[in-house]
Amino acid sequence: MNTEMSPVELRRAVRSGEFTGNTSGVAQGFVQCNLAILPADWANEFLQFCQLNQKPCPLVGMSAQPGDTGILALGEDLDIRTDVPKYRIFKDGEFAQEVDDIRDYWRDDLVTFALGCSFSFEEALIADGLDVRNVTEGVNVPMYRTNVACKPAGRFSGDTVVSMRPMKPVDAIRAIQICSRFPSVHGAPIHFGDPAQIGISDINTPDYGDAVTIKDGEVPVFWACGVTPQVALEQAKPPFCITHSPGHMLVTDLPNSRLAVL
Amino acid sequence: MNTEMSPVELRRAVRSGEFTGNTSGVAQGFVQCNLAILPADWANEFLQFCQLNQKPCPLVGMSAQPGDTGILALGEDLDIRTDVPKYRIFKDGEFAQEVDDIRDYWRDDLVTFALGCSFSFEEALIADGLDVRNVTEGVNVPMYRTNVACKPAGRFSGDTVVSMRPMKPVDAIRAIQICSRFPSVHGAPIHFGDPAQIGISDINTPDYGDAVTIKDGEVPVFWACGVTPQVALEQAKPPFCITHSPGHMLVTDLPNSRLAVL
Repeated sequence: MNTEMSPVELRRAVRSGEFTGNTSGVAQGFVQCNLAILPADWANEFLQFCQLNQKPCPLVGMSAQPGDTGILALGEDLDIRTDVPKYRIFKDGEFAQEVDDIRDYWRDDLVTFALGCSFSFEEALIADGLDVRNVTEGVNVPMYRTNVACKPAGRFSGDTVVSMRPMKPVDAIRAIQICSRFPSVHGAPIHFGDPAQIGISDINTPDYGDAVTIKDGEVPVFWACGVTPQVALEQAKPPFCITHSPGHMLVTDLPNSRLAVL
Repeated sequence: MNTEMSPVELRRAVRSGEFTGNTSGVAQGFVQCNLAILPADWANEFLQFCQLNQKPCPLVGMSAQPGDTGILALGEDLDIRTDVPKYRIFKDGEFAQEVDDIRDYWRDDLVTFALGCSFSFEEALIADGLDVRNVTEGVNVPMYRTNVACKPAGRFSGDTVVSMRPMKPVDAIRAIQICSRFPSVHGAPIHFGDPAQIGISDINTPDYGDAVTIKDGEVPVFWACGVTPQVALEQAKPPFCITHSPGHMLVTDLPNSRLAVL
């Protein structure tokens, strides 16, 4: 895979069926997004849920009107029905099907939400010389369900899911500074140190992703994670909903640096 | 003591001998500084030491020329010889004498350095609702010698001294964000968690100041501390030097908020 491919080139390759893989490391330097597509009668409550829980559910863009298949702010020629490598269809909160293209499932009442993803801040951490363990070890980041409750909004509620990256304290302090600049990709960590304090019983057994090595002198550092809205969707059980498949993100034309608030 | 006294009023009360006490909590909202006064032939190396070690030795102001008794940037009528409640005179690196006034010791070759102090960031932490334990418990902040070496400059070298405030991790993350805005008052912490990692053997026995309670679920958070340059001065042993007495700071006309870099 050519990591130097531009976001537009990548989306065209996805659209033509030429690219159907994981988007980790492709079109580097550009924002990738988690996706949630919901019927209009569920969209307002989901929007409220995102606004009340910005750390796990940072809204980067949404469709202007129900049925819109583009999000202008994220890419001029973007077609949300074809430009994500893999989608998951949920019915009544249950996973039903994985597909490469959702044109056959599209409806005029669907609203698209694009949420920030940790790829952006990982790039900023690596650029600063920090070791991002899941990248170094070439695995998916470990993720855990916690007992940190999200603020409920209508039919949406649930606990926060976190991703974990082990670091020396001095590096964790630097990571907190760097990530604070990027609130729309989960922002600063929400916890470090003792996993039990946020309801994680075994750091070596993540609920999602892969375990990573925690070296001597390192502490686990926990970021709110984009799996949180997926869990909220599974619990709310809307009759119909579409998400991206894990790791198969919407690649946008926004440079990561554009998300820095300062 | 009237905590509502303005910096100018406070300095005049100090100058007249009416106020000789600890400046903690007085003239709230304004920057207080650590003081180091050195002969010109030592000043350049000390300035370099501060520039190489900005976290423990953040330079807020210095006299424009050797012999100057004012620092215009810090206060219009400021007289460095009379406006600090208590001074310490050092000879060959040894403490010689504590005095209220240094007019009798003044020399035309003396250069004054005013360094940032933790009072400013403690105020910002408290304003954000965080518990600053040494303030809550009404004691001096606990300080420790560490094994974190400063970068040497000429005759100046030494290990970093840190102050410690215990916090829950979520509060420590917020404190790191707040303090990052204030690099000239020590900035972000340099460590949290295991004291042994920075060479502290017993957290309950500080080298300076008083021990504070560390509650269940809290971790110690360590900031570079203004005692560091004093230790460097003691080790360098300049033939003559003057500092403030611990807790008896130079109160300036600078609002704390003016130090925020963003």
